[in-house]
Amino acid sequence: MTDPAKRSPKSSRPAQSARPRARAGESPDVRFRMRICRGDVVALGPGKVALLEAVREQGSITAAARHLGMSYRRAWLLIDELNRSLKSPATVSEQGGQSGGGCVLTPVGEAIVRLYREIDQEAHRAAAKQIAELTRLMRA
Amino acid sequence: MTDPAKRSPKSSRPAQSARPRARAGESPDVRFRMRICRGDVVALGPGKVALLEAVREQGSITAAARHLGMSYRRAWLLIDELNRSLKSPATVSEQGGQSGGGCVLTPVGEAIVRLYREIDQEAHRAAAKQIAELTRLMRA
Repeated sequence: MTDPAKRSPKSSRPAQSARPRARAGESPDVRFRMRICRGDVVALGPGKVALLEAVREQGSITAAARHLGMSYRRAWLLIDELNRSLKSPATVSEQGGQSGGGCVLTPVGEAIVRLYREIDQEAHRAAAKQIAELTRLMRA
Repeated sequence: MTDPAKRSPKSSRPAQSARPRARAGESPDVRFRMRICRGDVVALGPGKVALLEAVREQGSITAAARHLGMSYRRAWLLIDELNRSLKSPATVSEQGGQSGGGCVLTPVGEAIVRLYREIDQEAHRAAAKQIAELTRLMRA
């Protein structure tokens, strides 16, 4: 575990220990995250949108939670919090049935996912020049 | 506070308990947060930009850390991590002197703050239509 660069007075490569943790050749990845907050509550952010997408894909909160590696309880609470912050809910749950309660997106839920992704794209496009300038300041 | 539209004549539903945690009348606040990541490391994000701004305003890492309510150690590590990820550092520290080491932004540091704020503004402007649509889905 000893860093060789720090070990010996004869070491000729002390620069290595001062390297960034990034792996060489890995290009920077620019991520936008929009959050709509009210007070301290994030009414809508990347976590809730990813959860809506998982529900749409997986067909239930249980499967969506598993897919995202979160507890059912956490997924349920996030969806409940989102639905309460909306004029009309983003999801509809079907109680019972053989496979337990399924869950689907309402037109409002579909609109939220679509708008959120559009905002991400528009933001990237509009700020492309500044993003390029900023990434040029970074080590390759 | 009861929503008249939902209060069917004989409804005994305790709508009050189902309210969102948000305070009434508080309008949603839309925040963009851009992060430039490399692998798992956030090379540049809102925390580091806020720290650069605090350093510029406060004149030292110690004062900037205090201003943001973070430990000196954490502030120092964030700045070190940022500087290592850049081709040329964002800050210059002055060792010693009567008041201890001051710290100022380099032209690179100034450019980072400016570009980051511009990206935020451009993103808001470009996505204004979708942001408005999304916030219209939220409860007032």
